[in-house]
Amino acid sequence: MKGGKRCLQCLRNMAKDKLVKSITSMDEDFAKWYTDVCIKSELIDYASVKGCMIIRPYGYAIWENIQREMDSRFKKTGHENVYMPLFIPESLLQKEKDHVEGFAPEVAWVTHGGEEKLEERMCVRPTSETLFCDHFKNIVHSYRDLPKLYNQWCNVVRWEKTTRPFLRSREFLWQEGHTLHATAEEAQAETIQMLNIYAEFAENVLAMPVVKGVKTAKERFAGAEDTYTIEALMHDGKALQSGTSHYFGDGFAKAFDIEFTDKNNNQVHPFQTSWGTTTRLIGALIMTHGDDSGLILPPAVAPIQAVLIPIASHKEGVLEKTSEVYEKIKNVCRVKMDASEQSPGWKFAEYEMKGVPLRIELGPKDIENNCCVVVRRDNGEKTVVSLDELVTKLPQLLKAVHDGLYEKALNRRETMTYDAHNLEEMKDIAENKPGFIRAMWCGDRECEDKLKEVAGVTSRCIPFEQEEIAETCVCCGKKAKNMLYWGKAY
Amino acid sequence: MKGGKRCLQCLRNMAKDKLVKSITSMDEDFAKWYTDVCIKSELIDYASVKGCMIIRPYGYAIWENIQREMDSRFKKTGHENVYMPLFIPESLLQKEKDHVEGFAPEVAWVTHGGEEKLEERMCVRPTSETLFCDHFKNIVHSYRDLPKLYNQWCNVVRWEKTTRPFLRSREFLWQEGHTLHATAEEAQAETIQMLNIYAEFAENVLAMPVVKGVKTAKERFAGAEDTYTIEALMHDGKALQSGTSHYFGDGFAKAFDIEFTDKNNNQVHPFQTSWGTTTRLIGALIMTHGDDSGLILPPAVAPIQAVLIPIASHKEGVLEKTSEVYEKIKNVCRVKMDASEQSPGWKFAEYEMKGVPLRIELGPKDIENNCCVVVRRDNGEKTVVSLDELVTKLPQLLKAVHDGLYEKALNRRETMTYDAHNLEEMKDIAENKPGFIRAMWCGDRECEDKLKEVAGVTSRCIPFEQEEIAETCVCCGKKAKNMLYWGKAY
Repeated sequence: MKGGKRCLQCLRNMAKDKLVKSITSMDEDFAKWYTDVCIKSELIDYASVKGCMIIRPYGYAIWENIQREMDSRFKKTGHENVYMPLFIPESLLQKEKDHVEGFAPEVAWVTHGGEEKLEERMCVRPTSETLFCDHFKNIVHSYRDLPKLYNQWCNVVRWEKTTRPFLRSREFLWQEGHTLHATAEEAQAETIQMLNIYAEFAENVLAMPVVKGVKTAKERFAGAEDTYTIEALMHDGKALQSGTSHYFGDGFAKAFDIEFTDKNNNQVHPFQTSWGTTTRLIGALIMTHGDDSGLILPPAVAPIQAVLIPIASHKEGVLEKTSEVYEKIKNVCRVKMDASEQSPGWKFAEYEMKGVPLRIELGPKDIENNCCVVVRRDNGEKTVVSLDELVTKLPQLLKAVHDGLYEKALNRRETMTYDAHNLEEMKDIAENKPGFIRAMWCGDRECEDKLKEVAGVTSRCIPFEQEEIAETCVCCGKKAKNMLYWGKAY
Repeated sequence: MKGGKRCLQCLRNMAKDKLVKSITSMDEDFAKWYTDVCIKSELIDYASVKGCMIIRPYGYAIWENIQREMDSRFKKTGHENVYMPLFIPESLLQKEKDHVEGFAPEVAWVTHGGEEKLEERMCVRPTSETLFCDHFKNIVHSYRDLPKLYNQWCNVVRWEKTTRPFLRSREFLWQEGHTLHATAEEAQAETIQMLNIYAEFAENVLAMPVVKGVKTAKERFAGAEDTYTIEALMHDGKALQSGTSHYFGDGFAKAFDIEFTDKNNNQVHPFQTSWGTTTRLIGALIMTHGDDSGLILPPAVAPIQAVLIPIASHKEGVLEKTSEVYEKIKNVCRVKMDASEQSPGWKFAEYEMKGVPLRIELGPKDIENNCCVVVRRDNGEKTVVSLDELVTKLPQLLKAVHDGLYEKALNRRETMTYDAHNLEEMKDIAENKPGFIRAMWCGDRECEDKLKEVAGVTSRCIPFEQEEIAETCVCCGKKAKNMLYWGKAY
């Protein structure tokens, strides 16, 4: 870089210091860093109803990208979108015993329509199993009507006490898949298929490594026979459940009287699944990739994949050339050209905070040399790219950012995963080393409860990839059944 | 057509009679015809909460197509999507006086979260002006922050007494645009721009002609200074308000204390608009284009644009050739190949009922001649198309269906639009000739109320295209100000 650029670098750092000062550093206060990033990068605003949030354009554009990527995966595997009502009559919610016990304490109740008191109060859906069952009962009569492979994109409400943007808000947006099958095997295969889609999505779209596994009975979804999960590890060493897929057997079908005539002309109950991911994934992105300068967005969901910034734009020809370059690359990826009055330094800091994967700088010297400088947000690496090659280089650089983010997150997870062989080790790690803890378990609920009590950890999952790191349960010392991931979780 | 085909035609008619018998004829009972179409073509199912509906895959796919087409128009004109909370605290709803009076009688109230009674009850949003204002107040401080061009896709609830699928349901899906501008002129221009987008969308996507105009004061949105509307005419001669665009002036900004520093460093209030369309558009489609065989969908929003049906599929080579043709055209438009066990006649009736714009028949004779038969849903016209030309012919035929539908609807509207010059004529037309009534009006609310009382009509709009069909008010005989469209409306 020539002198002109170096000087600019100083300016940039100055401007950045000034702007970014307002983001608390991660090490100082991770929770504060998180909310600072949410607010200052304009993902959200707080709403007048406590515990609810406003998703601002930049945050919602990330959600739209997540939706598009995920929806295409659902459709490719034969799923259809539907829309169920927002409200569930109390009597309908109560039909499946475990389910109502799990959700009734945290639902919002509607008691009046206009001036009139309702005959039966209704809750705002916390999840829609009961509504889907009620509908399935109407439309499924013969094996020819199966499978039903449905999904819906909607809002749900859970009246939680403690809330945080994206991670746990009283209203959130999600997708909930609900499927009905003629056999248990088919429903089980669906449950696993959707978990695999979530894991593939997390890795290939969000650049986020996940552990796939099954939940213990204690951590299961209310009413499920099995709950499968993808678990990610956040920057601060806490786990984040990022997507779940449930196998219901025929429990709901029995509770809701759903029957069909099978090929042998017998009346039988069908088997069911449900699976969901939420706006929580945006929280996962922030806490997996972000740094003290703000967001870092994986290219596949970044609303702006590259920002094009003219340098010394008052000089002759700079703005014209920048527009020309913009026209050339605008269909290659999601590019924003920022030719506003703000200084380059201000812009650098602004788009760093917003986590834009690539920054393209174009100044008089660059134009002279028919090139530009492309800077990666994930590692700060600068590449001088010929303007003739930019169209082919940009996709490669975006891929490099994705891979870089994934690599970094995977390394961190590996570094922050510890093995515990006995209760003392477990307590020590839980207290001193944030991260995943791998430990053997006998399968008893008592040990699970005790680990929560004495070490403050919950079981995250029984991973599909097992490794016998000891023969005995980390808690009671009896013969172990499985290796589990444990941790503190959001 | 050769003998084989004619025989098939008989079969087809038999099967059709058998199937379609269950749809009530329009002339016999239009309301019953409408709900029959909604249910039998599997657009909706009734839900356990009265007045709410389940939108089934076929209905939801239409909505997804509407959303995609409309959303791209919003984004092209610089609008960004956001997401506001579902709930509005009662005190927030009450901030704008006219607005609360308009909506409070028909909102659903949430009074409890879990076991606990809320300190302040909240309503489920019937529309989100108050929420947007509350947010604008937080984020708009300087003229540099303007304009804000926001939209959201979401569900809303209005606790109506009488409900009908799509047309008036207690919960519905919609988009609501909310924008904030530095000047009244800019906000007014936005209001008109969005009305024009709605009208263009109605004509070019839904093949539905509309009258553009402004509402009288009586018919305005609660809190608006002006409400603009697009009004369509349904098959039965009733009007359907299909989209509205509101200019608020600075009334809401004042009520919510939204201020910004303008270029001259003065603290001033911004000017505001909102505009919306809903799942009601699906009802509009049904009642504009449908016939006694069921739905007829305009190609731009049809989930299946062409259905490919093998004839005599047990004969050698038919299924193979059908698959080959499918592979060739599957990326040309949204094609479904139906090679199921059902008879061709059953399939013909089924896809007619579902309103699929084109049917492609492929039998042994066709294959021998390297052609297929394409049948238009809108007019039954059959075209023999060479298989070599199918890829280029399909888009042309889809365009022809769109144009045919638009033409037919426009002709019907013109035929069903009547001029009334005095009260007697008005009463006579209103009683005997379903349709739009054009008549002059003096501008007094009294005359508007009287026309409702004696002729049962409401003012639909003061159309932009004025024509002085008389000099005096149709009601009081005093000097007239404007020509209005009047009618009975959904």
